[in-house]
Amino acid sequence: MRTVCVVGAGAIGSLIAAHLSRVVRVVVLTRRDEQAAALAEHGLRVSGLREFTAGLEATSSPAALTAFELAIVTTKATDVSEAAQALEGHSEEAVIMTIQNGLGAEELVRQHGPWPIVAGTTLMGGTRHSDTHVEFELDAPTWLGPYEGTRHEQVERVVSLFRSAGLQVEGFSDLAPSRWSKLVFNASVGTISALTELPHSAPFVEHEGVGGLVRAVISEVSTVATAAGIQLAEDPWELNVRAVDDDYAHPPSILLDVWARRRTEVDFNIGAIVREADRLDVAVPLSRALYALLKAKESSYT
Amino acid sequence: MRTVCVVGAGAIGSLIAAHLSRVVRVVVLTRRDEQAAALAEHGLRVSGLREFTAGLEATSSPAALTAFELAIVTTKATDVSEAAQALEGHSEEAVIMTIQNGLGAEELVRQHGPWPIVAGTTLMGGTRHSDTHVEFELDAPTWLGPYEGTRHEQVERVVSLFRSAGLQVEGFSDLAPSRWSKLVFNASVGTISALTELPHSAPFVEHEGVGGLVRAVISEVSTVATAAGIQLAEDPWELNVRAVDDDYAHPPSILLDVWARRRTEVDFNIGAIVREADRLDVAVPLSRALYALLKAKESSYT
Repeated sequence: MRTVCVVGAGAIGSLIAAHLSRVVRVVVLTRRDEQAAALAEHGLRVSGLREFTAGLEATSSPAALTAFELAIVTTKATDVSEAAQALEGHSEEAVIMTIQNGLGAEELVRQHGPWPIVAGTTLMGGTRHSDTHVEFELDAPTWLGPYEGTRHEQVERVVSLFRSAGLQVEGFSDLAPSRWSKLVFNASVGTISALTELPHSAPFVEHEGVGGLVRAVISEVSTVATAAGIQLAEDPWELNVRAVDDDYAHPPSILLDVWARRRTEVDFNIGAIVREADRLDVAVPLSRALYALLKAKESSYT
Repeated sequence: MRTVCVVGAGAIGSLIAAHLSRVVRVVVLTRRDEQAAALAEHGLRVSGLREFTAGLEATSSPAALTAFELAIVTTKATDVSEAAQALEGHSEEAVIMTIQNGLGAEELVRQHGPWPIVAGTTLMGGTRHSDTHVEFELDAPTWLGPYEGTRHEQVERVVSLFRSAGLQVEGFSDLAPSRWSKLVFNASVGTISALTELPHSAPFVEHEGVGGLVRAVISEVSTVATAAGIQLAEDPWELNVRAVDDDYAHPPSILLDVWARRRTEVDFNIGAIVREADRLDVAVPLSRALYALLKAKESSYT
């Protein structure tokens, strides 16, 4: 693999682009001109768990993209359609990788091209401090799997690339059990964090009422997974408690959206759970309540 | 009745004090010196549904209080203990009236004196713009009833006083059915408004997800009322929809507390429901979820 196009440079996109640039040519496709110019001029600084500055190329113009073997769409789920549209007509032999929270990104990519798609989910965490500085806060795996007819070796090539760049990664023949583990985690912990504006932290995990609610939502959403024929790969409760110590306070991306008064990914997380539950005729009163509350909270500032 | 002491001058306290001052001598007991000084100097201006300026007395010193026949504790539920303590030893023949949201205020007053207590609940609404200006926004009844052995005519004297001052009022031999109607309203609409930061308004009432959740919580809490042997006097859903038109946008007091980053009355409303439900062994998963969310939201800013 010679050239990787990273679409979007939020926290996760920046972390991936910086790491991959150590082993392959990376072109970052940004939305804003000034971000592309800053990245091309200053490179991308990683601090926190690792300290280095990555040299990479960047452009805000899809027309300027040259051939790539892999494109990684790292935007929020709400921006995937626009990102995939930017790639339309480019490198149709290339693999496209997704990494959004929740369900539905691959279907949106497919609408814009015939590329083989590697579906991804990541547990990595970081904070984007500026256009050229990202802090690496949580070193955790990215899970990859094939989407509709993508071949095993296409997944494995991406796995090898990530591993060679020093990122934790695991490939699966079926991503659903892992992806749903993260989905259940985001739909419970993420939604509750966004509603309470408590970051995922020791006070969050140790709050008795929150703990009871997280457990109840995990239990409810797990019944949807079971009805969908999916066995969760990881215990979402363990994902809730294992990363948290006294020094850890991670605002989930959905809470960052709330703080910034941005549209959140609620429709791809707890909203997707409610839609799946309705399709499968499973009762999800708590999930429906959380979904309604967060949609209404969004509407209070948009 | 010659002298009424109004303890606390928030929106409801100010509206009551101003109206009563038109028919009786009113002394407002405030917490802050400057508020008492401003009220005594400038009087209290009412705007909105009515326009007048009330002349009244005010002090921040409980020791300066002279005899009164009625004291109305208008503080938030969270401040009732402190207010009742300020009245301790004063006018033990006087009637004390409560008007807090939720359950538990009378028990707190009782701990500080042997006064007969008239329990109250109000649907009035207003906004306190300054120490000396309150806007009257919602002209709706105050409901009164006896607490533990208070005589019917003691309730009726307060009813007559309110009515003569131009306030809507109704006396009951048992306040519980009316109070619980308001409690169910506050526990559902108030809590959801506080969590979503959407004022009680047309967008709130017309939001499909919020509407479904309000209905579900009302239904759940009504089962607690039934288990407690209380038949609701009013349909809480009607309280939700009837006051709302395109021009109406009322932030419930609990939302004002959230916006001001103050401690809310959550423990006296949805928290009291959860405690009653636990005592009566009634399942209230939605109420418990809302209670946990609002407690956690409070803890995010305190």
